[in-house]
Amino acid sequence: MITLTSDFGSPYPAAMKGVIRRHTDAELIDVAHDLPRGDPRAAAFWLRFVLPEFPPAVHCAVIDPGVGTDRDALVVRAGAHVLVAPDNGLAMPPARALAGDESDVEAWTVAVDDPASETFHGRDVFAPTAARIRVALDDELSASDGDPDADAVAETLAGMEDLAPASDPVDVSFPEPSVERDEGSGEGAADGAAGDGDVTAVDGEVLAIDRFGNVITNVPGELVRGRDWVRVNGDLTPVAETFGAVDPGERLVTVGSHGYAECDVNDGRGDGAFDLRPGDAVRFVPDSVSL
Amino acid sequence: MITLTSDFGSPYPAAMKGVIRRHTDAELIDVAHDLPRGDPRAAAFWLRFVLPEFPPAVHCAVIDPGVGTDRDALVVRAGAHVLVAPDNGLAMPPARALAGDESDVEAWTVAVDDPASETFHGRDVFAPTAARIRVALDDELSASDGDPDADAVAETLAGMEDLAPASDPVDVSFPEPSVERDEGSGEGAADGAAGDGDVTAVDGEVLAIDRFGNVITNVPGELVRGRDWVRVNGDLTPVAETFGAVDPGERLVTVGSHGYAECDVNDGRGDGAFDLRPGDAVRFVPDSVSL
Amino acid sequence: MITLTSDFGSPYPAAMKGVIRRHTDAELIDVAHDLPRGDPRAAAFWLRFVLPEFPPAVHCAVIDPGVGTDRDALVVRAGAHVLVAPDNGLAMPPARALAGDESDVEAWTVAVDDPASETFHGRDVFAPTAARIRVALDDELSASDGDPDADAVAETLAGMEDLAPASDPVDVSFPEPSVERDEGSGEGAADGAAGDGDVTAVDGEVLAIDRFGNVITNVPGELVRGRDWVRVNGDLTPVAETFGAVDPGERLVTVGSHGYAECDVNDGRGDGAFDLRPGDAVRFVPDSVSL
Repeated sequence: MITLTSDFGSPYPAAMKGVIRRHTDAELIDVAHDLPRGDPRAAAFWLRFVLPEFPPAVHCAVIDPGVGTDRDALVVRAGAHVLVAPDNGLAMPPARALAGDESDVEAWTVAVDDPASETFHGRDVFAPTAARIRVALDDELSASDGDPDADAVAETLAGMEDLAPASDPVDVSFPEPSVERDEGSGEGAADGAAGDGDVTAVDGEVLAIDRFGNVITNVPGELVRGRDWVRVNGDLTPVAETFGAVDPGERLVTVGSHGYAECDVNDGRGDGAFDLRPGDAVRFVPDSVSL
Repeated sequence: MITLTSDFGSPYPAAMKGVIRRHTDAELIDVAHDLPRGDPRAAAFWLRFVLPEFPPAVHCAVIDPGVGTDRDALVVRAGAHVLVAPDNGLAMPPARALAGDESDVEAWTVAVDDPASETFHGRDVFAPTAARIRVALDDELSASDGDPDADAVAETLAGMEDLAPASDPVDVSFPEPSVERDEGSGEGAADGAAGDGDVTAVDGEVLAIDRFGNVITNVPGELVRGRDWVRVNGDLTPVAETFGAVDPGERLVTVGSHGYAECDVNDGRGDGAFDLRPGDAVRFVPDSVSL
Repeated sequence: MITLTSDFGSPYPAAMKGVIRRHTDAELIDVAHDLPRGDPRAAAFWLRFVLPEFPPAVHCAVIDPGVGTDRDALVVRAGAHVLVAPDNGLAMPPARALAGDESDVEAWTVAVDDPASETFHGRDVFAPTAARIRVALDDELSASDGDPDADAVAETLAGMEDLAPASDPVDVSFPEPSVERDEGSGEGAADGAAGDGDVTAVDGEVLAIDRFGNVITNVPGELVRGRDWVRVNGDLTPVAETFGAVDPGERLVTVGSHGYAECDVNDGRGDGAFDLRPGDAVRFVPDSVSL
């Protein structure tokens, strides 16, 4: 299986599929081709969320604002999964999520011959690389007659002549929110561990906006779950488990399926209502009335 | 085969595909993931139109405004087809269309263990249920070495321990238009049967708007087909078989591939030009000039 | 393999897939279903760009503003590829690109029985035709135990009873830009061959706009590549290999992966910034400062 992710819209991903089909009949599954344009961190966020649902696979992800520059093409092994992506950081957070253990992540750079275009390395570099790795893995797996495991994948990649160990792949990280407590712990970790003082404020950041305009923050869900109200950048907002708990058009804070607090509007767009964009600061203050 | 339908946009459906791939290699076909948000009736309309084109399959459809509430998860057998969907009515109209005969429709509720999330039952409930049913059907079919038939499907579902007969699944229906005739029959059925008086007016309703802004009503095509002009909520509009019969930007009434009268604009949007939304009333009056 | 292309949005293409699945389990790959509405020339442009990446396949492409009129349904062989499309020209440019040699392109019209709908020939005519051709090719190929080649494809199509040679299929062409030079050659071919005078102006046309608003012209990339500045309809614009060479929001001219000059905006939309639409004239004048 090869999964495909990009910000290309259509019909460009079909060109990648055609190229892959010249190498292998492996199944192709689209993750998304409408990710935020040229934003590796947003891609990392979504892939970290989605890819761990898959069994071991080759994942080709091309969000590539540096196409045509000298940024490397990267191959990352994460357990028995393989990511193929530009070296701009997008691959590392999902690789850590796929591997579970950071020690089970390895990165290589791909020796790239002069590609056919300056601007479409999805077709000219990443798709053929993903296809060749898929073929090599399938050859290895059919020879060993075994299930794919991390060792077999590592051995296969180590045997590919155009891969060289990556010395220092670009990484992106997601900021941790800053949590204020009213006694004892002061600013501290975001785990809200029992025994610390009550949370008086959380300063977080917007990680992503989804198709519905839901504003996904980096504030862990446990910091809002179970509360009735929270101030979001000063505005009193109900906390609810489901959209239907508020009237259509009304704002609410929920915990999304990724485990983070979201700023949403029932049957509307949270990004507009809360005036929030990716990277914006967002301060959550539990309202005293309800605490 | 498993078909997938939702209002999730991307990349959420990919998470469902990953989950399914942990159970089965069955083919996955997307029906749509951009259906109107949180609207089971619109989903029912489109699935009733599309699913009957497929050979017997498992259809997983998640338009789920009640996610996180205590609404049931439903499995519906319709002939040799199986639908997996929230119990909000969306499954029943397509089930009747797939079965042909209402007596060939059976519904079960799924015993759901505590799901991983409150808000993404597509991934945590419906995808794994569809996958387990697919696996059970494939086991049954490979054992019997026969083509899938309704009896084999019914037997397989009856043998699944986490399914219990549904006593009263939610249903949605599509309103019938009201037809006025100038003599004899008065208000009557929408079949426009010969021998009745001439149709003088039809009071219908907007069922759905498609990607192009075409306004799909519940008025059967035969009530407008063959006429030259019709008044739509008072405005004289040409009736045509094809968009090209009117100039770009001009309004027309056509009969869509679903058999209903549509209010359209050639190379434009009918919903804007006619100011119509789903659920709006729409009155068709054949124009006396042309009758 | 069958590729699918349309301007249908969703969920209409799923109905085509259902119909195909009643005939064959052949792999289905979506090229695009959001191509510009009713624009065969735009479809021809994109298919000419994408389809040559694929190994031999059946390509079903339905951009069909003439649906319901008496336009023919066309089957075109291009080498070992087969296109199934309405006879409105969209198939011919990609066919020439797939065949390499125009003598390796053959066209047939399809005898169409009364279709189920006036408006959805994608489902009622083109999908079943593509499926029947796929089945016939797979039968032929499995009998001959060979790789698909143009002769085997030609023989198979010639043996299908509902295909008749097309006498004069509709064609579309892409306009050649007009190139002015300052000495010797005057207006001439667009190949910018060495030895001609310097290019003083190129009068081209907008061929297509992509999802990002990039304005794709018919001006060959070699006429701008390597320059620093060019006037686009009078406005001085930097020429760059990559978007990142200019600040976000700034205009630039690049050479796209299709080899043509594009009018773009870094992290913005070129169609808005340059006020250009498909079919518009666009004049490129190398700026004297930088030559």
